[in-house]
Amino acid sequence: MLGEIIAIGDELTSGRVLNSTSRFAAAQLFASGHEIIAMTTIGDDEELIGRTLRLALERAEFVVVTGGLGPTSDDLTNAAVSAALSRPSTLYPEILRKIEAHGRHLPSERRLAMEKLAWLPLGAHALHSEAKSAGYFLVHAGKPLFFLPGVPQEMEELLLETVITRLAVWEGEEVRQVRQKLFKITGLAESEINRRLAHLEGEGQRLKIGYYPVFPEVHLSLTVSAPESREAEAIITESAARVAALLGEDCYGEGDDTLEEVVGRLLAERGLAVAVAESCTGGLIAHRLTRVPGSSAHLIGGVVAYSNSLKEQILKVNPETIARHGAVSGECAEEMAEGIRALAKADLSLAVTGIAGPGGGSEDKPVGTVWFALADRAGARSFLHRFPGDRHQVQALAAQTGLDLLRRHLLARRAARTDSGQN
Amino acid sequence: MLGEIIAIGDELTSGRVLNSTSRFAAAQLFASGHEIIAMTTIGDDEELIGRTLRLALERAEFVVVTGGLGPTSDDLTNAAVSAALSRPSTLYPEILRKIEAHGRHLPSERRLAMEKLAWLPLGAHALHSEAKSAGYFLVHAGKPLFFLPGVPQEMEELLLETVITRLAVWEGEEVRQVRQKLFKITGLAESEINRRLAHLEGEGQRLKIGYYPVFPEVHLSLTVSAPESREAEAIITESAARVAALLGEDCYGEGDDTLEEVVGRLLAERGLAVAVAESCTGGLIAHRLTRVPGSSAHLIGGVVAYSNSLKEQILKVNPETIARHGAVSGECAEEMAEGIRALAKADLSLAVTGIAGPGGGSEDKPVGTVWFALADRAGARSFLHRFPGDRHQVQALAAQTGLDLLRRHLLARRAARTDSGQN
Repeated sequence: MLGEIIAIGDELTSGRVLNSTSRFAAAQLFASGHEIIAMTTIGDDEELIGRTLRLALERAEFVVVTGGLGPTSDDLTNAAVSAALSRPSTLYPEILRKIEAHGRHLPSERRLAMEKLAWLPLGAHALHSEAKSAGYFLVHAGKPLFFLPGVPQEMEELLLETVITRLAVWEGEEVRQVRQKLFKITGLAESEINRRLAHLEGEGQRLKIGYYPVFPEVHLSLTVSAPESREAEAIITESAARVAALLGEDCYGEGDDTLEEVVGRLLAERGLAVAVAESCTGGLIAHRLTRVPGSSAHLIGGVVAYSNSLKEQILKVNPETIARHGAVSGECAEEMAEGIRALAKADLSLAVTGIAGPGGGSEDKPVGTVWFALADRAGARSFLHRFPGDRHQVQALAAQTGLDLLRRHLLARRAARTDSGQN
Repeated sequence: MLGEIIAIGDELTSGRVLNSTSRFAAAQLFASGHEIIAMTTIGDDEELIGRTLRLALERAEFVVVTGGLGPTSDDLTNAAVSAALSRPSTLYPEILRKIEAHGRHLPSERRLAMEKLAWLPLGAHALHSEAKSAGYFLVHAGKPLFFLPGVPQEMEELLLETVITRLAVWEGEEVRQVRQKLFKITGLAESEINRRLAHLEGEGQRLKIGYYPVFPEVHLSLTVSAPESREAEAIITESAARVAALLGEDCYGEGDDTLEEVVGRLLAERGLAVAVAESCTGGLIAHRLTRVPGSSAHLIGGVVAYSNSLKEQILKVNPETIARHGAVSGECAEEMAEGIRALAKADLSLAVTGIAGPGGGSEDKPVGTVWFALADRAGARSFLHRFPGDRHQVQALAAQTGLDLLRRHLLARRAARTDSGQN
């Protein structure tokens, strides 16, 4: 179907905030077989919202509107919809009850403001049964309109959970069955992935490959469509297997997987506990590992040894090592890894020390120089990387690379064990 | 002036590429005193380009169009402009000569394709004298239209170098001056901020307040406009002072400030070094502090004591404390803070221990229960918070609250010194 996306918010038209939700919606809708005529971004202006909506209704078969649904006085979307489509604002008692139930602990002014969310244009259906977030659905002039919150996470959830399904149902019998699979890749540039998979794309319109750089990773979506569900399943299974084979270990996971989850899963499978010693990443690796529920089972903890004195005092790095090779060196990284492993009584440990910038670089060790070390009972090994970018990018790339080193190390160990089992 | 931005490209409406140029243009135009009515993104479709342009000409005072100017067959902007505005495509010999000069080294098919760039709608003026990049200017129906390449770098250069200047010249005397200020708030709900500032909004159209929840903070923009620059300055200065007074310490910073930067600045001003002991945040607080360039001057480091054994072994928390009160307790938090402070020889320390969920909660200590402690030479004090949300939200709120505790503690110390100085 032909769709239009409208994003509402003064923060967008003033350039203060980058509109990433429209792009997310366009990519997902496109992958589900829809075509986007236009993506329009306008400010919080009741009359303009109404005019834009009416224009979209003229030229598109469905419309997705994001933003302006909140409880504050500059959230004007509902009022604009009511006025533009002559659908008076109506109290939805069921939504009100849910807001009251969820908002019991809120101060009364806050609760009163929230009540605004229970007033929707006549004919609206709440999209989320739990009323966890605003968002509704409306059929006008025979066309489906979706109104979603502007907060990216809420918007993305509702789009994936409800909008795409409702559009498929809407299309009725003529719906083409669409199947999608997402591959997550780290340590490989988009152009290299493209090169590996280019020959797959020539295989006709029923197979589409999309590349989404999500720094510091690349995500790849594989979309197939077919008239029948069984056929779609068969094509996606077969082509996903080919993509997986072409990507090999560079693909760390699929769908909702995160790198830290995959590392946690591998640690759990191997029955190993890990500890981390971080300098330039400042705790980011440990934090990413603790984002995974239940991570306390395989993460003992870590040390953020930002100063040399902490490296020496807690991690027992030899002061001579730092004097001779510098704190950013393979030698120091290995001693940090050995130190945290002994201190935390961990099976496996990871250490990172580098120069995140903007200062601190030299000709020998420019900004972006990062040493990693892994230690287990077989000893420690170190790895050197040079990352491009600013301080935040170097930190993010270093954390990502550290986690990926753990992942590849654990994969190799598993493979080794399987091999020896076969002998 | 009232402007409209139109971005053209199938790569944008399919979601493959994120449209960042429109946002750049909006931010720069806004900063130059213009207001953007709408930002529209459409595919490479001749008829749709024409219609969108005509609509923009109806409602805006100037239009900036990006993309679709290249030499390939899917670059349709010029053809669309010619058709929509009845301005026949015309050969510009001067541009052709420059293209020939620049393209001498190109293969002949490529050079032929480049010649397409010398055909522009009648009345166009090339924006770039060097013909390094495409881009032209056209006056239609008394309004200036700018056509820029879609490549971000070329577009951004032309916008800054030519579009903004030409608009200023165009406006002559009638320009309205716009001034904006951004306030960053933590520890206060959007509705509460709204309540404090509501009476300011009644003061006429020249003052606009926008609320942007950027979890876990709220950002607030104050925008004023006036015919004269001096008047705009006076209004923004006066109203910003009133907003700042109403927000008090809950406003941690302005503009590009981040909470970790403000904490770093306060530490530097006081000449204090800090260390952090984290359990449930897993390193996030230390990491946020290290995001700030130069943070090694006031951050010694930290320990991620995720397991009880690390809490006891490195931080010297008394095992009895954990046995009697649990690891999530004010007592444990205080001992963690004292422990890291002694270990790192820090002036000030922060400790966090809590239940991020989804497991591990109890009736007494539900998920979201987080204890904080601050320690300095005067001793340790602990604080209890209960956060809503899932694991990631609890971790983010705990890190934010920890940093904010540091900030408020440092503010109070500064105030105390000032007070005693007055005595």
